Amino acid sequence: MERHFDEELKELKNRLLYAAGLAETMISDSVKALTERRGVIIDEVNKKEDELNLLEIEIDDRAIKMMALHQPAAVDLRFLVSALKINTEIERMGDMAINICDAARELLKQPPLKPLIDIPRMAQITGQMIKDSLDAFVRQDAELAKSVCKRDDEVDDLKDQIFRELLTYMMSDPNTIERAMDLILVSRHLERIADHTTNIGEEVIFMVQGKDIRHHIEEKKQN
Amino acid sequence: MERHFDEELKELKNRLLYAAGLAETMISDSVKALTERRGVIIDEVNKKEDELNLLEIEIDDRAIKMMALHQPAAVDLRFLVSALKINTEIERMGDMAINICDAARELLKQPPLKPLIDIPRMAQITGQMIKDSLDAFVRQDAELAKSVCKRDDEVDDLKDQIFRELLTYMMSDPNTIERAMDLILVSRHLERIADHTTNIGEEVIFMVQGKDIRHHIEEKKQN
Repeated sequence: MERHFDEELKELKNRLLYAAGLAETMISDSVKALTERRGVIIDEVNKKEDELNLLEIEIDDRAIKMMALHQPAAVDLRFLVSALKINTEIERMGDMAINICDAARELLKQPPLKPLIDIPRMAQITGQMIKDSLDAFVRQDAELAKSVCKRDDEVDDLKDQIFRELLTYMMSDPNTIERAMDLILVSRHLERIADHTTNIGEEVIFMVQGKDIRHHIEEKKQN
Repeated sequence: MERHFDEELKELKNRLLYAAGLAETMISDSVKALTERRGVIIDEVNKKEDELNLLEIEIDDRAIKMMALHQPAAVDLRFLVSALKINTEIERMGDMAINICDAARELLKQPPLKPLIDIPRMAQITGQMIKDSLDAFVRQDAELAKSVCKRDDEVDDLKDQIFRELLTYMMSDPNTIERAMDLILVSRHLERIADHTTNIGEEVIFMVQGKDIRHHIEEKKQN
């Protein structure tokens, strides 16, 4: 028996929220493995990635089946296309958590270079950006989506600050170069996670307002 | 008057091929700007990015309108979903070309650190991977798509090789650190472009064989 479209839509949203929550946990755990120097956490993150990968396939299948079965018109179709795109963004965030774990594994082999303040801060901000971007999607809240996109600058600034600080370490002592490089890479993975949430935010704004802000077309036309 | 689905499909494929060709040119030009030390090329790449961004919106619109108007079943629907996903990958490759230009701009302010051999080689391989992944998509050629995915390892090896070589420069002379860092970033942008082509390749294999190799599920189940 075919279930009602709205019911399936609700379940699709729940699965996306669950996937995003999983990615968020993977990211905060990968940074925790690094800051608390606990390698055992890395294995847990890897297990969660297997789950996230299966979820990506499941969510894609759900959305495509809904398209095929219900042949939704304008608004609902656009929502399902957005769900497919957001699903990809979430899975890529999980990949970034794995990259952070890879860097953490290298860093844990050596003594800490410095107390980590900005990297956990970046992880905290991006975690909230994930939550808010998904909430914006399920609630179709363009204002919340805009606030996510704005916070991307804050994350970029932190990344630049981390880079400048670690560069001074590398310049003054070549023995710090490898560790500094790994920390710079971690900050770049976190920056990419923020980019993924911004992609989600822009998708939501487009979906809600029917206006594509992905490339700031209107601004460009005015110049 | 509504045109025939097949005709629209042909046009959609052509637009995707055109977008991919544009991304490919942007990437080879961004590396050319760096290796030939010609900053003027950077402005051309930026202009092309504006065009690519508009193309992304246009292609998405085409695919979604085809879904809404023709309400295609199984195979055609799956093809259109793949087109939407591949469209995003192409646009992200363009972003990477812009990142390479940003690094090139910094590098051109200083004397060259070393003759560049591996970076142009990476650019050449990834350029071919873009071509082949898109050809695999429009021709629905799973074998060609698999060959794209295989070449990703070669690009990863080159990236690791570049990293190790530049690390020795940084270790022996702190004055090389900033330039070496920028070159390492360029190699990572190229690696991400190869990742995007691999994503396209996996999408094609899934579409053609109805088998999701995105996360090597079968292999994992066997272990």
